[in-house]
Amino acid sequence: MPNPTTRERMVSAAMTLFRREGYTATSWRRLVDEAGTPWGSAYHHFPGGKEQLAVAAIGLAVDTTLATVDRAFERGETAEDAVRWWYRKAGQALAAGDYRSGCPLATLALEVVNDSPVLTEACRAGFDRWHETLTGHLTARGCEPAAELATAIVTNIEGALLLSRVRRSAEPLDLAADHVATLLRAA
Amino acid sequence: MPNPTTRERMVSAAMTLFRREGYTATSWRRLVDEAGTPWGSAYHHFPGGKEQLAVAAIGLAVDTTLATVDRAFERGETAEDAVRWWYRKAGQALAAGDYRSGCPLATLALEVVNDSPVLTEACRAGFDRWHETLTGHLTARGCEPAAELATAIVTNIEGALLLSRVRRSAEPLDLAADHVATLLRAA
Repeated sequence: MPNPTTRERMVSAAMTLFRREGYTATSWRRLVDEAGTPWGSAYHHFPGGKEQLAVAAIGLAVDTTLATVDRAFERGETAEDAVRWWYRKAGQALAAGDYRSGCPLATLALEVVNDSPVLTEACRAGFDRWHETLTGHLTARGCEPAAELATAIVTNIEGALLLSRVRRSAEPLDLAADHVATLLRAA
Repeated sequence: MPNPTTRERMVSAAMTLFRREGYTATSWRRLVDEAGTPWGSAYHHFPGGKEQLAVAAIGLAVDTTLATVDRAFERGETAEDAVRWWYRKAGQALAAGDYRSGCPLATLALEVVNDSPVLTEACRAGFDRWHETLTGHLTARGCEPAAELATAIVTNIEGALLLSRVRRSAEPLDLAADHVATLLRAA
């Protein structure tokens, strides 16, 4: 793998920091320092500063999430298997990051929604892409109504990631996987 | 009803602002201004500043949420009725506040969890109180396993409030109420 470019290092640092600490708490200075980038170079790549960088970080967060979702459905025999594996992975990542590395979109979304039109739109588009990908996988497995079940799966992982973070335990994620399995079977 | 005291005005302003804009984005100056309180009086009530005020705001947020939950279970014939009424109320409040007034704990919890030990503990204790109250209502209705169903109900409203906020639509909350009803019936 080639060394990441300055731009890639900045976007990756932004995704990590927004996920752990939130958008407002992460200063542009901190982002530039964390990426190990000269100040001028940072502005060269992101003349729009933190907001523009955040749009790219949201894009990376969605790409990363979709890669996990795709992998879950490639390896799982049923939709239930896929969801269980994915939620378990999310719980492991949360524990490995000392219960701070939850959803890379959620904190930023709650902080900025409707405050920054640019970031609001990027979050909406990001969640839509996520929902569409999931709907596609569910449709391919014959799980209907796929769009509603996809909303349930996103709802459950988001709520469970919040509770797991607060309780410092992956139990809410395990329980959410059980409940999604019940919904898939009842559908 | 007597006029609210300075302390009550400050706690109420803090809950509203942390809910809409988050903890980090809300400065102490803004909180003091919003409560219409002299600077010295604000420090008299909260010598620990914003963090101490936030602990009180978390307490008020939980009290407010529990009052809604209690009301939902008093008026609903079944647990399903109660959850539907409560989730619908949450959707109406969200829409009335231009899709910014979501869960009064979630944004703050995601921002500060593990960063401030005091606020982390206040959030954990707040979610625990919420969970215990719900578990009590479910047990009283014979819905078992009550503790797991209570976790599912909190998980679903938290995830759905996030999605509803991002999509600017109460649909995810309505769908989450349907899904909780399925879980209650399957239990």
